[in-house]
Amino acid sequence: MTGGSGSFRKGERVGAIDATASGEGSGKRVTAAQIAREAGVSLPTVSRVLNGHADVSPETRERVERLLLQRGYRRRTRQRQTVRLIDLVFPDLDSPWAVEIIRGVEETTHAASVGCVVSAIHGQFESARQWLQNVRERDCDAVIFVTSHLEPEQQRELRKLDVPTVVVDPTGSPGAGVPTIGATNWAGGLSATQHLLALGHRRIGLIAGPQRLLCSRARLDGYRSALESAGVGFDPELIVEGDFYHESGFAAGRTLLDLDDPPTALFASSDQMALGFYEAVRRTGRRVGEDVSVVGFDDLPEAQWSSPPLTTVRQPLVEMGRLAARTALRLVQGETSESSRVELATELVVRNSTAPRTP
Amino acid sequence: MTGGSGSFRKGERVGAIDATASGEGSGKRVTAAQIAREAGVSLPTVSRVLNGHADVSPETRERVERLLLQRGYRRRTRQRQTVRLIDLVFPDLDSPWAVEIIRGVEETTHAASVGCVVSAIHGQFESARQWLQNVRERDCDAVIFVTSHLEPEQQRELRKLDVPTVVVDPTGSPGAGVPTIGATNWAGGLSATQHLLALGHRRIGLIAGPQRLLCSRARLDGYRSALESAGVGFDPELIVEGDFYHESGFAAGRTLLDLDDPPTALFASSDQMALGFYEAVRRTGRRVGEDVSVVGFDDLPEAQWSSPPLTTVRQPLVEMGRLAARTALRLVQGETSESSRVELATELVVRNSTAPRTP
Repeated sequence: MTGGSGSFRKGERVGAIDATASGEGSGKRVTAAQIAREAGVSLPTVSRVLNGHADVSPETRERVERLLLQRGYRRRTRQRQTVRLIDLVFPDLDSPWAVEIIRGVEETTHAASVGCVVSAIHGQFESARQWLQNVRERDCDAVIFVTSHLEPEQQRELRKLDVPTVVVDPTGSPGAGVPTIGATNWAGGLSATQHLLALGHRRIGLIAGPQRLLCSRARLDGYRSALESAGVGFDPELIVEGDFYHESGFAAGRTLLDLDDPPTALFASSDQMALGFYEAVRRTGRRVGEDVSVVGFDDLPEAQWSSPPLTTVRQPLVEMGRLAARTALRLVQGETSESSRVELATELVVRNSTAPRTP
Repeated sequence: MTGGSGSFRKGERVGAIDATASGEGSGKRVTAAQIAREAGVSLPTVSRVLNGHADVSPETRERVERLLLQRGYRRRTRQRQTVRLIDLVFPDLDSPWAVEIIRGVEETTHAASVGCVVSAIHGQFESARQWLQNVRERDCDAVIFVTSHLEPEQQRELRKLDVPTVVVDPTGSPGAGVPTIGATNWAGGLSATQHLLALGHRRIGLIAGPQRLLCSRARLDGYRSALESAGVGFDPELIVEGDFYHESGFAAGRTLLDLDDPPTALFASSDQMALGFYEAVRRTGRRVGEDVSVVGFDDLPEAQWSSPPLTTVRQPLVEMGRLAARTALRLVQGETSESSRVELATELVVRNSTAPRTP
């Protein structure tokens, strides 16, 4: 599950000028520049193909990849022997899962004696530009980008950085053209809802995440699929959209608990929204677990510290961080791979916030 | 409160060999080597005095400082113009306040276009040694060490690093001989307890932190002082020691709630222990806020997401991180200062877990 064998598109790092290679058997090195000439493209284009960047047309990519293979291109021995720094970039550090991902990345970089530079671009494009400038100046070896949403302009800037890049994307936004690590959101929504169905619940509410994010739609579809498989009707009245944060879970809870026929159980698309729902339940004088069952999504540390401890769908954030770091280290070493997106398995963790439906 | 003017012992960075200075008015630079000769000490000793390290006898320090002043020693223009990297080191990244401190440090380094390398030494001395090796190799400009406890050997290793070092120390362990940033623990314990007294509570329990840590003893003393000022007897039966983590708060809660005359209110020396106490209260069928009042300490994000939202003593962790980064940046620039420990103010944040005592 930690994805040790996860593998990605070719991600070799090549300098814009000095990229060379060995011709197989010929004893003479084939350079990236020769490949570029033969393919009729520029050297930076060959570099982009080698680094797995997206802004190359499929035809060009195919032509260049075929030539690299035919000519037995091999990476040049890098001048710098060791990987020294990996940049780990967040949109903002107030995201509740930031520290989990930092832990996974740091564990891996630490073991490899590599420094992990943590930064946030604070949601501002100017800030992103400044950050890119800094990354260039400190000559980092690879970048791990953690994102919930990338502006197109930010994506372009990111691709301009000619270093291997990996995206950790718990929200499943569409590919930025670089290797991406996510979690199985649909399966998570399915198992959360199946758990509540197995406890006898039939009116199961959903506090969904923002529907512009793929991960939210996948969790919603998992929920709907579980209901349909169980022959339970899908009631749009029981679904409220939140923004993943506590306050929106509280507000959604007020709405749902105010219904004439309120749900006896709830699946919240994030732990924070689940805890917001807890507070809405408390305000009505009811008790989570006893009167209403609740399942969250994420398994942040606070899920087990809540009262009652929260049943939730665990996203393997630490493992996602570890895999991102291992992938980045592999890409720096010029290893090639195949898949552009890896999803690690989610897992239902049953605690005390769910119980059989009381008749 | 963010301590903009916080100032520390001299913290100039000097290379072991090439440290030079300008003689005031003479037009001729006074070198650190000259100062060393005049003082009858080694150059590394002068360097240690300039960097504010502790392993210099008071007499030597005074003699060297007097000479530096008399000879008008000024820092040499550094060859590297800009600060590039600051290392931020944690014992472990699972500490609940890690991300808060990272946020404060990153905000400040980001604004200064400096990279913040985050690492953890995972509590192992071997790991610490490896980390020190890495720090030397990446030639970082300063180190911010976040600690709850430093082994003497780790302290020695840390001092061997000839770069400006700042310690962020929420637990108040005795000085490692470098500038330290903490919070006002005694005042926090006092205000938490005064708040409960003002609500009419007289039997106020305490879940203390580990008594080997200064911060825990300071919070306990603040609690005791508030009780004494209010003429309320100090009952040792109402005090249980925990380890700051959730589980110990839960266990302490079971003990306290089981007393023949249980407390009507509780002050927990950490938010996590307060939330553990919540769970103990829930298991007895009672309700926090209504039946028992609870005050925590830290104001981690989960304090406001708990149900009911937790009244707590805020440690300004983000501000502590900011101040540590600003201090480190100043020390790199060779600015001098005076105090070796700065404590930022704690503040009581009243939410819904405390209420007037019901007769």
